Amino acid sequence: MVKEYNVAILGASGAVGRRMREQLEQSTIPVKSLKLLASNRSAGKKSTFRGKEYTIEETKPESFDGIDLVLSSAGGSVSKRFLPEAVRRGAVAVDNTSYFRMDKNVPLVVPEVNSGVLKNHHGIISNPNCSTIQMVVALKPIFDAFGLKQVIVSTYQAASGAGQSAWNELERESSEYLKDQKMQAKILPVKGAEKHYPLAFNLLPQIDVFEDDAYTHEEWKMIHETKKIFFDDMNSSKIKVTATTVRVPVPVGHGETVYFQVEKANEASAEAIQNAVADGAGLVLQDDPSQQLYPQPINAAGKRETFVGRIRPDLENDGSYWMWVVSDNLLKGAAWNAVQIAEELVKKDLVRVADPEKSYEMYKEN
Amino acid sequence: MVKEYNVAILGASGAVGRRMREQLEQSTIPVKSLKLLASNRSAGKKSTFRGKEYTIEETKPESFDGIDLVLSSAGGSVSKRFLPEAVRRGAVAVDNTSYFRMDKNVPLVVPEVNSGVLKNHHGIISNPNCSTIQMVVALKPIFDAFGLKQVIVSTYQAASGAGQSAWNELERESSEYLKDQKMQAKILPVKGAEKHYPLAFNLLPQIDVFEDDAYTHEEWKMIHETKKIFFDDMNSSKIKVTATTVRVPVPVGHGETVYFQVEKANEASAEAIQNAVADGAGLVLQDDPSQQLYPQPINAAGKRETFVGRIRPDLENDGSYWMWVVSDNLLKGAAWNAVQIAEELVKKDLVRVADPEKSYEMYKEN
Repeated sequence: MVKEYNVAILGASGAVGRRMREQLEQSTIPVKSLKLLASNRSAGKKSTFRGKEYTIEETKPESFDGIDLVLSSAGGSVSKRFLPEAVRRGAVAVDNTSYFRMDKNVPLVVPEVNSGVLKNHHGIISNPNCSTIQMVVALKPIFDAFGLKQVIVSTYQAASGAGQSAWNELERESSEYLKDQKMQAKILPVKGAEKHYPLAFNLLPQIDVFEDDAYTHEEWKMIHETKKIFFDDMNSSKIKVTATTVRVPVPVGHGETVYFQVEKANEASAEAIQNAVADGAGLVLQDDPSQQLYPQPINAAGKRETFVGRIRPDLENDGSYWMWVVSDNLLKGAAWNAVQIAEELVKKDLVRVADPEKSYEMYKEN
Repeated sequence: MVKEYNVAILGASGAVGRRMREQLEQSTIPVKSLKLLASNRSAGKKSTFRGKEYTIEETKPESFDGIDLVLSSAGGSVSKRFLPEAVRRGAVAVDNTSYFRMDKNVPLVVPEVNSGVLKNHHGIISNPNCSTIQMVVALKPIFDAFGLKQVIVSTYQAASGAGQSAWNELERESSEYLKDQKMQAKILPVKGAEKHYPLAFNLLPQIDVFEDDAYTHEEWKMIHETKKIFFDDMNSSKIKVTATTVRVPVPVGHGETVYFQVEKANEASAEAIQNAVADGAGLVLQDDPSQQLYPQPINAAGKRETFVGRIRPDLENDGSYWMWVVSDNLLKGAAWNAVQIAEELVKKDLVRVADPEKSYEMYKEN
């Protein structure tokens, strides 16, 4: 008999939550029941799943009674409050927020890269940051074939990475600009920050808040999540990573210029890297200058894959290469990666928490 | 008696040509007469300069009779055809196209960096590429204080870098997108190329045509122009430079993430680099995370300066730093740099060609 799962989506009304529902609908996961959870602001809204209508409910600790699997994308404070409650009730949660990512008791998983660590979970599995995910998926076959010493990445990140409201703001500001009206910025670069700047027809070199070292938290995430995903150690010195992250006036689809240095410089070449990427899991090579073929957000939006092109050597540094990586930040960068983790959990029969009360205590103190 | 100059603007109807006229109007150059030249398509259009009306004329070799100074931005083929004719008639030309930039008899000048080479001119002086100019202006005080071993740059380039028609196309496509209409791409990424893609709400990792080595010509320019400007040698190995150039849906103002390694790692620090930049010619430091202060295209548009922020060390590589550089690609990246060169020529009394006929022969064969 096929095991079936009671699934809850936490943050079901957001840009990522809606896509989690869609990706779950298309997934191989046998869903016995679905619960759509959000704040009381969204409670009462209707949604459909596999032909049936569902009503969004306000999230409460008891909402997780009887739930096997939670897909969560409602913000760090919501994850902090409710995921320990869900785990206490025996549910396994795949969390898209950053709240638990650096907890040593929480696997940080990109299935193409490190699904092996899933077996160590205690109830919560974290989905990495969108810009990290697409980069590590693209780097994985290169890492396997040639090793990696260093990564220097600049990002071109879409508005929807900051949520549906930021996406709406980009479109509204664009309209205002084209009508010669003053652009009204209320959300970006960071919701709730002191200052807001228009993104439409502009560039904002700030994503998330600033840390004390003048890096933004987004840049911090790209550095430390990459180390944790590749080496299960957020401070690993086995790979050097540095990043500058920039928000660009694109609705969906992050771009990244990734400059990387391989360990086995003698074995690597642009062609060998192209071949590795072409064979890599979750990757599509789009790299043919003669056909003007390279990844573009407009083509990546709505797709699960990560697209890679512009692969070529630094002409003055042996073993160093460039590539250009684009993926749908709401799918592989969020909803699809979470559902993909859930598929892996189901496949490996890991939708279970060994000691829910112990996990609850552990996460409660996070 | 103050010397006065007969000035011609070649390509007067374009986005850069119009700004050349405006920058000349605000400059210190004593203009005796002005001639506005363009193709016959634009001939007959009116324009004003210092309160007087001028009519755009069709460019012919004879147009340069009696002209002392030419500011040129009408495309490489126009420069090729007409600038030798202008020089033959005794004029000095500041050319914004790439046509003569790598000619060893043509100084490639950014006044803040290498105005010393102006004295070697034979009639034509080249204005570098827009993305190169703002980068070398930002790097100059760092180069002087700490030396530079390597530069790794990713660009975020505005539509107007491809001309007024590309700028118009971005705005039209943006309107189409917001009305749920199909975007009609006819110009970008490269005018006359086989394929065209929308820039609105998208990213295009192709600027200019592809070279055989899979770099675009824009990337080639950033590499070789930087070497020529700093070391008067387009192939200098004294500095390593590599680039990925990307077009973004911004009308005016290029952004760049510049990752650089200094020679004197022990003497450099983020603060020392900030101080050097703050004191650097043509630069404005906008770098205060606590105030969310950093350069943005929307603020740089219409200004002559280059704006620098997000200066911070690579936390894992001693002597390596990031910065974020923004400037108006039509002003410092084109029109203002050209007029600034002309101001230097006037100041140094270099608006003269030693042997016009010899220069004509030399440039004719370029």
